[in-house]
Amino acid sequence: MIKVVILGSGNVASHLIKAMEANTAIDLVQVYARSKKSLENVMDSNKITTSFTTLKEADVYVISVSDKAIEEVSNQIPFTNKLVVHTSGTMDFNVINPKNKRGVFYPLQTFSKNKEINMQEVPFCLETENIEDYNSVGNLAKSLSNSVYNITGEQRKSLHISAVFVSNFVNHLYQIGDALCIENNVPFAILQPLIEETANKIKTLAPVDAQTGPAIRNDEPTIEKHLEALTNPTYKELYRQLTLSIQNVKKL
Amino acid sequence: MIKVVILGSGNVASHLIKAMEANTAIDLVQVYARSKKSLENVMDSNKITTSFTTLKEADVYVISVSDKAIEEVSNQIPFTNKLVVHTSGTMDFNVINPKNKRGVFYPLQTFSKNKEINMQEVPFCLETENIEDYNSVGNLAKSLSNSVYNITGEQRKSLHISAVFVSNFVNHLYQIGDALCIENNVPFAILQPLIEETANKIKTLAPVDAQTGPAIRNDEPTIEKHLEALTNPTYKELYRQLTLSIQNVKKL
Repeated sequence: MIKVVILGSGNVASHLIKAMEANTAIDLVQVYARSKKSLENVMDSNKITTSFTTLKEADVYVISVSDKAIEEVSNQIPFTNKLVVHTSGTMDFNVINPKNKRGVFYPLQTFSKNKEINMQEVPFCLETENIEDYNSVGNLAKSLSNSVYNITGEQRKSLHISAVFVSNFVNHLYQIGDALCIENNVPFAILQPLIEETANKIKTLAPVDAQTGPAIRNDEPTIEKHLEALTNPTYKELYRQLTLSIQNVKKL
Repeated sequence: MIKVVILGSGNVASHLIKAMEANTAIDLVQVYARSKKSLENVMDSNKITTSFTTLKEADVYVISVSDKAIEEVSNQIPFTNKLVVHTSGTMDFNVINPKNKRGVFYPLQTFSKNKEINMQEVPFCLETENIEDYNSVGNLAKSLSNSVYNITGEQRKSLHISAVFVSNFVNHLYQIGDALCIENNVPFAILQPLIEETANKIKTLAPVDAQTGPAIRNDEPTIEKHLEALTNPTYKELYRQLTLSIQNVKKL
């Protein structure tokens, strides 16, 4: 069994805790959180500590806190020469205090508090400072997921930007669609099959080949009608810019 | 059996033809196309006519052509008092020649040539000029799909705009993600689970509650890093605008 300590209690930490608690190959020895309350419905509170001085020994320490807190949390770990990884998409492993062996354990997924996740399908992007530590992090990730990648820091940062486009920004476009439906008294659920088909289509077609709609058809009368109908200036401007951006894509 | 004639040979027409040919409750009597070649791999060419004068009798005529061609095609139908519908999301039924009974038969989905569609899951948005014609159009739609809606012209037009946001624009964001992956030598497939989870999440959470990422967290250091890393000016500007738009959403 791989012995793990998680430091953090946010969305990512909570999902990792649940997945590790349910996993027979992983012994989640302890969790550090600023308050026990934040993990109330996530795990047995006896395993939670709110003090760094009582941190237990483990094979891997997973720091899953906000980017700006990683360094400080890593400073507080009262051990040296342990394997310490963080879960951030953007930060270098060297924000972690160099008294320990360092790495990255980045689950590339959107985690929300009230939405279950199948961790086995979550891609883990791994990086270690020393090549000899890769197996430990790799084994931990492979115990959780079927999708494990050795990814450099540069690649991970670019993946994180792509993830913002294909997930955070995409969700915002769903939110705009929802707002327009509410405004016009139609159920947003009518759009769900379209949303899912759009997401599934790119498994077999490159996105550039999957593009449909008025922009790619250069259907100016429809584009004009849509712009006229959009009363929210932000939505109107986004419509204009996204349309232009679609029309500017040069097919390879 | 409902007798149907389809007029058109584009993406939507092709998918409707395939679904109707496979459907035991529907008799696809004939298809009008400008050339037989356009439907070569879609159907038996004996059922295709390239001349309006040889159009056969049917219960419903489905015009599935570009918006600007609907009126002209409807003028060419050599019958009167027949039920004639179009498949457009944006056009009023009254672009159809009034010599026939008019309506709309709008399948709300993204249709691409090389991607199969399960028509049973496609929402059909229906409208008829005369209430007594609704059942004929409704029965045709219900034979094809489990998801049939009576939708006014105004609602349909707003749904079409929403569809552009949640499908066409979303696909473009996938395309940007793909381009960034190619640029940084990472496989786009790593992002597929994230893309699917983002699409599925909103079945149980409203999009406004499903929002994650640096914009909604007001994580300025990450936003700044991302903007710095984006070299394509269009992507940079879209990143900026979408981030602002997320931050401007007022939670209800």
